[in-house]
Amino acid sequence: MTVKANPERALRDLYHLRSIGTYKTGVHRPTLTEDDLVTRHWLVGELQAIGHEAWIDGIGNVISHTPAAGKKLLCGSHLESQNRAGWLDGALGVVYGLEAARAVVEAGRTDVGVDVFAFADEEGHFGSFTGSRSLTGELTEADIDRRADRTTGRPLRQALAEAGLGDMPRYRLDPSRYAGMLEAHIEQGDWLESEDLHIGIVTSIVAIWQYKLVFEGVQNHAGTTRMAIRKDAGVALRRFCQRVEERFPDVCGERSVWTVGQIVLEPGAPSIIPGRAEMTLQFRDADMETLLRLEQTVGELVDEANAAGPCTVAWETMNKNKPARMDEAIQAALAAAAEACAPGKHARMPSGAGHDAQMMAQLMPAGMMFIPSIGGISHHWTENSTDADIMRGAQVYADAVGRLLAG
Amino acid sequence: MTVKANPERALRDLYHLRSIGTYKTGVHRPTLTEDDLVTRHWLVGELQAIGHEAWIDGIGNVISHTPAAGKKLLCGSHLESQNRAGWLDGALGVVYGLEAARAVVEAGRTDVGVDVFAFADEEGHFGSFTGSRSLTGELTEADIDRRADRTTGRPLRQALAEAGLGDMPRYRLDPSRYAGMLEAHIEQGDWLESEDLHIGIVTSIVAIWQYKLVFEGVQNHAGTTRMAIRKDAGVALRRFCQRVEERFPDVCGERSVWTVGQIVLEPGAPSIIPGRAEMTLQFRDADMETLLRLEQTVGELVDEANAAGPCTVAWETMNKNKPARMDEAIQAALAAAAEACAPGKHARMPSGAGHDAQMMAQLMPAGMMFIPSIGGISHHWTENSTDADIMRGAQVYADAVGRLLAG
Repeated sequence: MTVKANPERALRDLYHLRSIGTYKTGVHRPTLTEDDLVTRHWLVGELQAIGHEAWIDGIGNVISHTPAAGKKLLCGSHLESQNRAGWLDGALGVVYGLEAARAVVEAGRTDVGVDVFAFADEEGHFGSFTGSRSLTGELTEADIDRRADRTTGRPLRQALAEAGLGDMPRYRLDPSRYAGMLEAHIEQGDWLESEDLHIGIVTSIVAIWQYKLVFEGVQNHAGTTRMAIRKDAGVALRRFCQRVEERFPDVCGERSVWTVGQIVLEPGAPSIIPGRAEMTLQFRDADMETLLRLEQTVGELVDEANAAGPCTVAWETMNKNKPARMDEAIQAALAAAAEACAPGKHARMPSGAGHDAQMMAQLMPAGMMFIPSIGGISHHWTENSTDADIMRGAQVYADAVGRLLAG
Repeated sequence: MTVKANPERALRDLYHLRSIGTYKTGVHRPTLTEDDLVTRHWLVGELQAIGHEAWIDGIGNVISHTPAAGKKLLCGSHLESQNRAGWLDGALGVVYGLEAARAVVEAGRTDVGVDVFAFADEEGHFGSFTGSRSLTGELTEADIDRRADRTTGRPLRQALAEAGLGDMPRYRLDPSRYAGMLEAHIEQGDWLESEDLHIGIVTSIVAIWQYKLVFEGVQNHAGTTRMAIRKDAGVALRRFCQRVEERFPDVCGERSVWTVGQIVLEPGAPSIIPGRAEMTLQFRDADMETLLRLEQTVGELVDEANAAGPCTVAWETMNKNKPARMDEAIQAALAAAAEACAPGKHARMPSGAGHDAQMMAQLMPAGMMFIPSIGGISHHWTENSTDADIMRGAQVYADAVGRLLAG
């Protein structure tokens, strides 16, 4: 079946969403803030307008049910933004889903359809994948009791009550309802742009492995302690990082990334030799063997550092998940749709960022497509994509939905 | 003239001071706390007992005037401690001064004498050398208005009022009253111990040159930003530190020390590539040429880092003082006294830490002597020296005072 999007309408919807919680050329719409709720209610209205049953559940997810009795897809992404961030991160995938749902209806197909979801709090203001984890049954009531907005400290319970959602039940996803899940997103990297491509077909969502490393030395006076006898935990930390930078390139994959995002020296004063130093080390890859090789290297470098002294280092796993494979049939449908609309201008690639699709992939076949990010910038108000890329993406997405519903 | 200390009495005084604000085997006596004031009033009483006019001035300095009309020395150090720190840092120099003052009186000399001072806040709870700077006239009323306890936030004005010192005038030192100033201190390093020496005769107090370095990169997503295009300010900072560690040993002096005590990555999250990173770099030496060579090296490394990219680095001087030369005649008196009491077991050395003597050296001839620190530990409750070293030091100190008053 052929499903044709109205790309101008999708672009108009995105402009409309940008007008809610505008920050410079981006948006500031943290989860369950007033502006965030305005966008959720807007989406409910748009879905009801095409005959869907649509509502916001007890965790803030926008849920919709097409009246179609036959084959159905679950489409969507998220509506909230990072603080003072971009206008497309999340919103793009929701609007593409909405546009595809409309296009299926406009194609006269009432037997098949698209449920459009806006997953709550993908951006993690109250944790991580709060809405998705609620849909899969992973999020407990006790989790909700514990969580609070990482910026403002507002408890999640209070935020839900203030949003009028305190008494709403949380929706539990029934995977048997769906043939699969499809999410579109901006790439958030510069690879498509640098390769002059229009569409990325996601093969898998990388796993994130993260460690805390603690270096212990001896805190001492920065004036009276000779260099030769110092046990400076900060020096030990920097030497470790240097060894990571020397060794990782030899054992990493082509698209592996690693980051030291946090460093704390204790006590952290100009005239005191740090007695303790702490850092996070995170790496990401889509390939389990590469992940294991990188982890083994960290272990070797820890042993090496402890053998060399004079400080000690201990490491602790903070996070370690599995790469989420995207469904082959969905990849094939996306590739066919991309070839029809942007011949030769698409490629398969892993996703370096986490997305709701990785949560859905636990329950059903899932797939993702990317459009280019200008300069690879995201999580910043300057995040952008060209109107042409946005409109082309809406077409490819709807076309792929048509192919999947027909298949 | 021969002045003989009573070393057991000095040790007893130090034990008494340790009983005030005891913390494990050390003390916790921040400036102008109740325990700190108990020690100041105790000192005033001891000085009055040997016929001195003694009082606490409007900034917390203990001031004493010997009734002697002839040659006078200014002796002392400080009574407050770092938080939960050692029992000898400061107290040793005050007690040696007190013991020398008593010994001069006991030697029957009423023509010459020793004024004993306890300089307020050498440890810098309310700034840096607060008491000394008040004595030299450097500390303004506006400074006092601005300052607050770095741990508790209590304003200095309030602390002075609560100590009953709010209406006391601040004493302004008259350098013409003195032939010189003498301060004893624990070494706070391990050099005397490692060389099996009993007495260190300080040649100069090192200068502290301190810089803030700010690295600017581009904050970005730790999952989607390829390694090749990252501008990670944390990586740039660590590379800079690595270059410092490579280059400084080639240009430093024998006793130069350098420290990176503070590092801040921004925004400081595991999944965000740091866009900005900041550090302090401090080095110390007693030789101006060495200091200038180290500073020139920092400049070269900054230029090198900026030429290499991809991040930029800017540097800013935070602190840059001159080494304080200790008076040759006082060094000679200390050396003669040390040779009499500990033949062959003394040596000249710079002080790696700052001391009130460097403030006094601006106004009059000043000198310092060190006794060994066990394991070089200081600013920690385990700080210690042997009783034998403490008692021997009291003898050397009083002997040197006798030589200087006779000279």
